[in-house]
Amino acid sequence: MEIPPGPKGTRDFYPDLMAFQEHLFASWRRTCRRYAFEAWEAPMFEHLDIYTQKSGAEIEKQLYTFEDKGGRMMALRPEMTPSLARMVAAKGTSLKRPVRWYSIARLFRYEKMQKGRLREFFQLNMDILGSSEVGADAELIAAVIDMMRDLGLTGNDFQVRISSRTLLEECFCAIGLPKECFAPIYALLDRKNKITDEEYTAELAEIVADGQLRQRIHDLFSVRGLDGIAALTGATPEQAVLARLFTLLEKYGMSDYVCFDINIVRGLAYYTGIVFEVFAVNKGMRAIAGGGRYDTLVELYGGPPTPAVGFAAGDVVLGDLLQERGLIPPSSPRCSVFITALDDKNFDEVAPVARLLRNAGISCAFPFKRITIGKQLKQADAAGAVITLITGGDESAQGLLKLKRMRDGNETTVPRDKLLENIASMLEER
Amino acid sequence: MEIPPGPKGTRDFYPDLMAFQEHLFASWRRTCRRYAFEAWEAPMFEHLDIYTQKSGAEIEKQLYTFEDKGGRMMALRPEMTPSLARMVAAKGTSLKRPVRWYSIARLFRYEKMQKGRLREFFQLNMDILGSSEVGADAELIAAVIDMMRDLGLTGNDFQVRISSRTLLEECFCAIGLPKECFAPIYALLDRKNKITDEEYTAELAEIVADGQLRQRIHDLFSVRGLDGIAALTGATPEQAVLARLFTLLEKYGMSDYVCFDINIVRGLAYYTGIVFEVFAVNKGMRAIAGGGRYDTLVELYGGPPTPAVGFAAGDVVLGDLLQERGLIPPSSPRCSVFITALDDKNFDEVAPVARLLRNAGISCAFPFKRITIGKQLKQADAAGAVITLITGGDESAQGLLKLKRMRDGNETTVPRDKLLENIASMLEER
Repeated sequence: MEIPPGPKGTRDFYPDLMAFQEHLFASWRRTCRRYAFEAWEAPMFEHLDIYTQKSGAEIEKQLYTFEDKGGRMMALRPEMTPSLARMVAAKGTSLKRPVRWYSIARLFRYEKMQKGRLREFFQLNMDILGSSEVGADAELIAAVIDMMRDLGLTGNDFQVRISSRTLLEECFCAIGLPKECFAPIYALLDRKNKITDEEYTAELAEIVADGQLRQRIHDLFSVRGLDGIAALTGATPEQAVLARLFTLLEKYGMSDYVCFDINIVRGLAYYTGIVFEVFAVNKGMRAIAGGGRYDTLVELYGGPPTPAVGFAAGDVVLGDLLQERGLIPPSSPRCSVFITALDDKNFDEVAPVARLLRNAGISCAFPFKRITIGKQLKQADAAGAVITLITGGDESAQGLLKLKRMRDGNETTVPRDKLLENIASMLEER
Repeated sequence: MEIPPGPKGTRDFYPDLMAFQEHLFASWRRTCRRYAFEAWEAPMFEHLDIYTQKSGAEIEKQLYTFEDKGGRMMALRPEMTPSLARMVAAKGTSLKRPVRWYSIARLFRYEKMQKGRLREFFQLNMDILGSSEVGADAELIAAVIDMMRDLGLTGNDFQVRISSRTLLEECFCAIGLPKECFAPIYALLDRKNKITDEEYTAELAEIVADGQLRQRIHDLFSVRGLDGIAALTGATPEQAVLARLFTLLEKYGMSDYVCFDINIVRGLAYYTGIVFEVFAVNKGMRAIAGGGRYDTLVELYGGPPTPAVGFAAGDVVLGDLLQERGLIPPSSPRCSVFITALDDKNFDEVAPVARLLRNAGISCAFPFKRITIGKQLKQADAAGAVITLITGGDESAQGLLKLKRMRDGNETTVPRDKLLENIASMLEER
């Protein structure tokens, strides 16, 4: 029978690729725990409604949808925020606030395939719910920076660009842009890096007919720094909020990683305040992570008023960046000790040794078949063993066991009752 | 808007439930690593064909199926073995054998809801591919026992019952059962615990019309021990294989956990040799895990001849058992240190302290809002902090910080440059 490969846009995680995923997820967990976030998860599919409610019927095009056997429309989850809002809303006011939750989640989007984009991927989500303080935004921006740093990335590799939807609204009002243009411009700006300058100009002209107004928009997005904004609009409340955010980030020691950039708007309709994106430096400045404040979403899902801020980071672009920078560590050997038997007659004495090692938490394997010692050593090599333990022979009769360090072939003979400490110290010296 | 709860048969993993899942998965990973297995994963959905190929069109009833936007029929994966066979087959002979792989996978089955059964659940899968030796079967049975033991379960809590499809065939031939009855009887026996005795008798009569033959089948399944089988059939090759398996399990020190039981057949058509199930002792002897040899499956998926053996264990029934036995550990506190500020003026000095702690790997949080110290201590309590660190006041001016152990309110004042070691030792003494 002809068996098709896995579905387009999905990955088969053979052990090498899986080892990288485990490295990435372990790092993500470590960072989240240092920030005292708790793990949560949600169903892999949800009622379609919870996505269309937040993003409109348009979103369906990008979803894997299906009707279940009870006739209910479902969708594989394309993001975690709707599930988060649903679950937080369902608890009413009973969750202790602020809620500090993270999730490492598998997601699905039916998208055009391109570099850095897959139809099945993973995302780290960190969210703080129940605090409207800018300190919560600062905490999450610090967390996303520490997430990148924990993976070995530095200020030379990435940058967090920060703006605010509220600030942009203040600016739009100051230059006289009508309210009905805000949403389409947010959507357009979010796609700016993915379309040509000509396409951008044409699409902007469709939204804003007045040429003078388009020039003022252009001038606005050319402003560098918060001071430039103040020169345009005068002092506004949101400028003070952003200034406070940058002060806090300085206290966190994060100033080198962040900058203000009025061009950051984030496409999604539900952002209500500060927004930020993490970009890889060079190589087209790809977005690694993004987030912001969404103070009204939990209420939209029937919950109590719950100011919220969060970010998401995907595994695919981040994995590409780590590869590029040589930051994917070699995977640790799956087999610390391979146990062999010199003679047929002591083949059955291998399992008790394995038991001893495994009970001490040492990973080991041994051949299932009675084969020559030469073939056993080849299996040890193939298994990537750090040490080969040789049972049998004259040594065995004297209660001794031979340990062979595979790296250099160095051999030691140790008494059976000193086996564990000898193996432990050989494994440590690696 | 009325937001529906999550889909029927799925779970919302709030942090408490998630903490249990993480405990379970960490234990599973620990066991797999001790046995030198490598992690792998597969797409969450696959082409429908790979399931119907293995299990027939019937299986579709139990699947979540959908047509993707390219018109291809897909199914959410109900088990991992088809993906495993597909991925191993795709590599031809290039994988180093024996392959020792494990996966902790989320699966989906559209089933009638009942205790211990959900439509979305997790499974540990461990498989050895490329060895036809009974030693591989022994290794996996030892692994499933150590998996249970690592969770705190003992020989009083569970038992592994072992038989063999080949042995059963030998017996069926010896009593004169026609070949065409084998498959329906396997399917019936697998459901025996789930149906009444009357239903069983009626269904058996449909498969085997001859009353005398039915009596011989009844006698066969009443046999206890391998010796009883030998008395019925004379010595057969598979009896020797099973005897060898029990000898090996004795070498592993696992004899107390295992027994022969001719009633274990496993429903799935693809098993070819030894089969086993892990049962919880008492409480209706629910199956916790099951597996066996499937020597022809990889070939069915277009791969080279690849003898294989594996097992799967689900999270739901196992979780119920651990709960019943009081073996769910209290979750460790998500927040080691909650940092507070005595006075408004040193509120901004909290973030640098957090940075110091987090860089040392210590989990901590602090309030985002300037609130009274009383309210801050309440937040520390709500966060489940082990220690509250108090900045500010006279001590702060002298370079001192106050640490309050939340368990008993005990307070210590420490110099700032001795902060980390003092916190570390307070956390260790828990």
